[in-house]
Amino acid sequence: MQNALQKAIGQRIRKLRLEQGLSQEELAARCKCHRTYVGMVERAEKSISVAALSKFAKALKTTMSSMLEGL
Amino acid sequence: MQNALQKAIGQRIRKLRLEQGLSQEELAARCKCHRTYVGMVERAEKSISVAALSKFAKALKTTMSSMLEGL
Repeated sequence: MQNALQKAIGQRIRKLRLEQGLSQEELAARCKCHRTYVGMVERAEKSISVAALSKFAKALKTTMSSMLEGL
Repeated sequence: MQNALQKAIGQRIRKLRLEQGLSQEELAARCKCHRTYVGMVERAEKSISVAALSKFAKALKTTMSSMLEGL
């Protein structure tokens, strides 16, 4: 269940990143986090905090609320 | 910044809990977490994961998206 949630969030982050033509490196730079962290979140290998989600949302020019819509 | 986010989330959880006439104990039981954890989240003493937020949302019969609206 929790894993399904992480997976869905990871897929959404990846989708938004690719739609905006960003590499993992570029997204990481915007989030001030490491590229490997972006990869781990996208592959749902890492549980994400609301604080981190907030950084991803800002970096991807969207809102947390919209990122979690329907989840 | 992150602290303001935690604060806003804690306040929203508390508001929803009180609107539904639940004690911290009752909410904790629904979330399968400890009462002190609920208190810490409500007082923004604890950073919250998306997985934990999902449990709170379910326990409070709302969605994560609605809980984070405007944040």
